[in-house]
Amino acid sequence: MKKQLSIVKIGGNVINSAEQLDLFLFDFAKLGGLKILVHGGGRKATEMADSLGLQPKMIGGRRITDEANLEIVTMVYAGLLNKNIVAKLQKYDCNALGLSGADANVIKAHKRIIKDIDYGFAGDIDEVEDQTIMLFLKSGIVPVFSAITHDKQGQLLNTNADTIAAELAKGLSNSFEVQLVYCFEKSGVLKQVDDDDSVIEHIDKNFYEHLKKEGVIAEGMLPKIENCFDALKFGVHKVLIGKPELLSDKNIKHTTLIL
Amino acid sequence: MKKQLSIVKIGGNVINSAEQLDLFLFDFAKLGGLKILVHGGGRKATEMADSLGLQPKMIGGRRITDEANLEIVTMVYAGLLNKNIVAKLQKYDCNALGLSGADANVIKAHKRIIKDIDYGFAGDIDEVEDQTIMLFLKSGIVPVFSAITHDKQGQLLNTNADTIAAELAKGLSNSFEVQLVYCFEKSGVLKQVDDDDSVIEHIDKNFYEHLKKEGVIAEGMLPKIENCFDALKFGVHKVLIGKPELLSDKNIKHTTLIL
Repeated sequence: MKKQLSIVKIGGNVINSAEQLDLFLFDFAKLGGLKILVHGGGRKATEMADSLGLQPKMIGGRRITDEANLEIVTMVYAGLLNKNIVAKLQKYDCNALGLSGADANVIKAHKRIIKDIDYGFAGDIDEVEDQTIMLFLKSGIVPVFSAITHDKQGQLLNTNADTIAAELAKGLSNSFEVQLVYCFEKSGVLKQVDDDDSVIEHIDKNFYEHLKKEGVIAEGMLPKIENCFDALKFGVHKVLIGKPELLSDKNIKHTTLIL
Repeated sequence: MKKQLSIVKIGGNVINSAEQLDLFLFDFAKLGGLKILVHGGGRKATEMADSLGLQPKMIGGRRITDEANLEIVTMVYAGLLNKNIVAKLQKYDCNALGLSGADANVIKAHKRIIKDIDYGFAGDIDEVEDQTIMLFLKSGIVPVFSAITHDKQGQLLNTNADTIAAELAKGLSNSFEVQLVYCFEKSGVLKQVDDDDSVIEHIDKNFYEHLKKEGVIAEGMLPKIENCFDALKFGVHKVLIGKPELLSDKNIKHTTLIL
């Protein structure tokens, strides 16, 4: 039987609050079994760009990564945030190891092909080095991924953290029974976008197609959920979506996605 | 017989020139046997502090690390520089893994005790986690250390890169025959500080005491050399000091320190 592995992704809203982040890291450190953390960026990169007088460009909710912005996200995501998260986890006796995709070549990507839009130094993932990640996990090390990858040609690339979590989950599903957990500011996929009590607790592929057709799932959630079903199709056991508290409180409402 | 391990430290001057850094990394990638890289900070942290309107404080050649400066060095050393160095080494087929002391708890330090001067978030090293570093080395991974450590209580600390290299060398000398290599802008320890041809090629402890008494070794070199002899006393096999080219060109003049 495969060992269980939890891959947990936290987004900007948790990271933006020092208090919330600390509570989350405490819970994550206590989480049993093998685990991986993937963290997004939060507000800090934008603040840093502002302080340096750079204008962040956004198209369709994605940051356009020019060279100056790549420097900033590398500093903030792989440096400031990643190392502070690792240090906090170490405090809580979780043997965290901070990684970008370049480190031990764990995630190889390529610069996104230009079609309509030039996203700049944005990376689309080619390959996850599962053997190295397994070596870390077997040695009691907890990998903590920032949203920076590389192309193995010396170029760092800015990569969506949701996608990193999904690709890790897919890449490691051959060896582990993977549960992928997306923590964000809402309690899960909601019927009414502003009503946190309207959580849809279980969604399978058929029900998802139905919800999409009815327009129940909001625009911003669509690519997230597509990613999740893609991961399930590639062997990920299940996907949970909800507030960070779901790590420690099994009774808290959240959404579970299965095929 | 113990396996050989090279621990190479590069300083600011190499890092400040993209071209020099690239040449160095190419040579480092080709260097045979087990190896570790330790890198200093260079000009970028100061530039970043300037851009953000912060005044760096220096006492006795050491940066006083207040909270704002700790943020900057964490971003620049552990983020920007470390990840770009790792990505470049990956390009040259060297399986680099970027580390701060917090990562996998590889270097534990404590905030420097206040005597006359409060150095702020400066770290003095307590312990090197040699077992974890050996696991990396045995797996074909090349650790690349930035000059950031932690106290295992959630606090990151700014730590001198020369000292990190020396402490790693000492900590790993039980298991390896360690050669510690300090690369900087000069050809080694010089008799005349401005004459690069006046390299003193061999120095042992007695000769060092003599040179110190005669005032031959310049002020800035003294703590460096003291660190080196301390490392030799703790079992490090030898210490080389010189230009980065000494990695690839065995005939280039440099200084070798032995007990």
